[in-house]
Amino acid sequence: MLKENYIKKLYELDKKLISLEYAQALISWDSLTLAPKKSVTFRSNALSGLANFYFATLICEETNEMLTYLTENGEQLNDLDKAKVRILKEEYNKIAKIPPQEYADYKALISESSVAWENAKNEKNYQEFSPFLEKVIEFQKRYINYQEKEGHPYNTLLDDYEKGLTVEITDNFFDFLKEKVVPLVKKKSYLNKDKINDIPGNFAVKKQAEFSYYLMEKLGFRMDCGVLAESEHPFTINLSRDDVRITTHYYEDNLLSSILSTIHETGHAIYEQNIDKNFGSSVIASGASMGIHESQSRIFENNFGRSLEFWEFCYPKLKSIFPELLKDIDTNFIYKALNFTKPSLIRIEADELTYPLHIMIRYEIEKMIFEEKVKVKDLPELWNSKYEEYLGIRPGNDAEGILQDVHWSEGLFGYFPSYALGSAYAVQFRQAIAKNINIENSIKIGNFSEINNWLTNNIHQFGRTKTPSEIILAATGEKFNPKYYVDYLTSKFN
Amino acid sequence: MLKENYIKKLYELDKKLISLEYAQALISWDSLTLAPKKSVTFRSNALSGLANFYFATLICEETNEMLTYLTENGEQLNDLDKAKVRILKEEYNKIAKIPPQEYADYKALISESSVAWENAKNEKNYQEFSPFLEKVIEFQKRYINYQEKEGHPYNTLLDDYEKGLTVEITDNFFDFLKEKVVPLVKKKSYLNKDKINDIPGNFAVKKQAEFSYYLMEKLGFRMDCGVLAESEHPFTINLSRDDVRITTHYYEDNLLSSILSTIHETGHAIYEQNIDKNFGSSVIASGASMGIHESQSRIFENNFGRSLEFWEFCYPKLKSIFPELLKDIDTNFIYKALNFTKPSLIRIEADELTYPLHIMIRYEIEKMIFEEKVKVKDLPELWNSKYEEYLGIRPGNDAEGILQDVHWSEGLFGYFPSYALGSAYAVQFRQAIAKNINIENSIKIGNFSEINNWLTNNIHQFGRTKTPSEIILAATGEKFNPKYYVDYLTSKFN
Repeated sequence: MLKENYIKKLYELDKKLISLEYAQALISWDSLTLAPKKSVTFRSNALSGLANFYFATLICEETNEMLTYLTENGEQLNDLDKAKVRILKEEYNKIAKIPPQEYADYKALISESSVAWENAKNEKNYQEFSPFLEKVIEFQKRYINYQEKEGHPYNTLLDDYEKGLTVEITDNFFDFLKEKVVPLVKKKSYLNKDKINDIPGNFAVKKQAEFSYYLMEKLGFRMDCGVLAESEHPFTINLSRDDVRITTHYYEDNLLSSILSTIHETGHAIYEQNIDKNFGSSVIASGASMGIHESQSRIFENNFGRSLEFWEFCYPKLKSIFPELLKDIDTNFIYKALNFTKPSLIRIEADELTYPLHIMIRYEIEKMIFEEKVKVKDLPELWNSKYEEYLGIRPGNDAEGILQDVHWSEGLFGYFPSYALGSAYAVQFRQAIAKNINIENSIKIGNFSEINNWLTNNIHQFGRTKTPSEIILAATGEKFNPKYYVDYLTSKFN
Repeated sequence: MLKENYIKKLYELDKKLISLEYAQALISWDSLTLAPKKSVTFRSNALSGLANFYFATLICEETNEMLTYLTENGEQLNDLDKAKVRILKEEYNKIAKIPPQEYADYKALISESSVAWENAKNEKNYQEFSPFLEKVIEFQKRYINYQEKEGHPYNTLLDDYEKGLTVEITDNFFDFLKEKVVPLVKKKSYLNKDKINDIPGNFAVKKQAEFSYYLMEKLGFRMDCGVLAESEHPFTINLSRDDVRITTHYYEDNLLSSILSTIHETGHAIYEQNIDKNFGSSVIASGASMGIHESQSRIFENNFGRSLEFWEFCYPKLKSIFPELLKDIDTNFIYKALNFTKPSLIRIEADELTYPLHIMIRYEIEKMIFEEKVKVKDLPELWNSKYEEYLGIRPGNDAEGILQDVHWSEGLFGYFPSYALGSAYAVQFRQAIAKNINIENSIKIGNFSEINNWLTNNIHQFGRTKTPSEIILAATGEKFNPKYYVDYLTSKFN
């Protein structure tokens, strides 16, 4: 009786939280795609009201009692319910350990801090942002203490975004990169003096959109279960497996930019669309982790989208949309443009080879912050010197240096590594797929169904019921091994 | 101390409910404008979760205690807080009197009933819908009993949408119409045999949209505080005074349809945009009632938009957008087309003269239902005979008869009269404005600022802090008087 009662409460809690998350996700989507300029104040009020509901629903004695009982009596539960309890208990522990007033103050700080970051970036002036960053970091350090975990303090943050991730694993990964990729980048940066990563021409947005829809459908996006829209920065958001939304940004003078971002976001979206439909509206019905999610966008973008076969499949369509502008451009030109590498200052514009080094720099800096080895005032100099060390270039100002990313202003420490891990997981997954499927041939004929079936069976369907490491082990037959990624990069770009 | 504590609780409750209403409104907007086809199930889950939060927040002993105290000690409150207490107490009483299980069952019934209505309408078969309608009406009757109000049972429903509205007032209003307008319609219906209510041509949607934006801005819509989108049926939704959204529906072969609906929805939107900004996120920060709201859309649509001066102001712009298609059309042609009248079966396509008769028919039927004078099975025959009686035409099937409107399937009984009242209020407001402002001249030069100032000062700014009758009395110097409307219609269309 007790058990049934608690399971009923578990389902109720799950449903409540998901309805709030649905609303929050839609508000976020709307704010980035459509909402009018001046709508921010009232939207913030609404979001803060919903956040209060979330907090009050999750952090209360009734929930604690239920989650504690079901955690201690887990053997009585089926696997799905076990996963729900695990996820909710983790979420409960994380927040419940923070003194409520401090949690509320932090939410307010983040809101101010994001605005300060935006202003500072516009002014190219780190000093305007650093007092806020200081406070955000102080909170993060207190947060780590509250969680009372063993081991390296930074592990607590890494684990929040990628279950099981530690400094040890991440160090090992980036050591590999430092050894093999950094020398390669330095060597290539002498060769690639001129930018050949775009196609000249003025490409009408409406026609670019036509190609985006074509690609989404071909790649396996269920078109009646999603939306494509435009936003400043491309992103994916899932309201449910039947409503996954992506955005892109069209540039009339840069055709490849929106194509790559559409492929990338479609990878994220297909993951969400293929989570087991029996999971319903539940915390288990979304991607396993940031890293696994990024592996799905990167496998589509890097491993499929930047291949020659991919362009053999889709270039005739693109050419039919822009017959005049593309009449002298062949698939080889596109392939070269998409795989051109050159060290650059801005992470989100980086090529496939140099991208992980941008992440490595952020990782090393974050680690130093939580090892108390660097002061907030000294971060810009540290940032710039690391860019010089690993990429051979130095930011000319803070906007193209330490202020370029929004993440730290929002308190997202420990998040960046998942971007690089995603690319690495993607290569390991690709190797595993290739054992059973002729990937090149599938791509060449534009038929992604076999590939998507593999991804769904081995990754997508599980949602959050498996941890990242469980997924990698079961899907590829071994633990995460950064060697695949490093070998791939060195053989492709050498 | 007690008072301060309760006022604090009042503000908290207000903020909580508004955050839920914001989310519900955005989800509704999204579902009608953008959401993918298959997204309905998960959206329903989210909406039901949010509705549960709403119910649990409003209907609890803590809220009851606070609202009761502040109602009984109202003299200590400022006017805004008084209005908040009044509105929330009314909402509390309405819902708290319904047994909780019955309330939940009704919510589920409405959801099924709407689907049944849609299917029945597609099949043109009332029988498929009537079992659901039967249950909805049964609930409405029980709801009326629960509210335990004196007087005619239907008054309870009328009052829900238009505070203070009674059968007596509404009878009086429609009696006037029946006496003056019905004979006029019958007379005119012999004259107007041929449809001259559109302009021939194929009008590109993108260009129609250009004109919509032009009109919105000219009419006084704050463009950085709102959105225009497309939907099947035009509507307005307010997320806040700084985020008011309207939709229109473009038809390539019917230029005037989207123009009229844009003017209409802009009238609704300007109302919301001009509510006192000091009201913040609160239950008092929206329109006073359905009828007052409709008066603002109708004054723009009928009293401004269908006037000759209006077209003198905006026709040059329209002509510059469609120079070829409009080269032989002058403002007189447009004016005549917009004011052409002919009895028709579908309410939302009705002209200005016959429109209120569509409402009168629904009112008479609803009144009979709650007087127990008609059975659900006999409604189609009653409907058809009333169309014959008042408009001289008879529906050929249920889809163009009793099944045309969604309202009853959603339990919106008592709502229709506000549509006709709105048109009547609009005429009374117009008369009042004309005492101080040269309306014709303002419109002719396309300058709506004086008119909007009057509307803001006399109507918009108050939000829900005044009742409809208080607003009408203060703004026009007298109570609602249907004579203005009937005189206007008879003099315009005779």
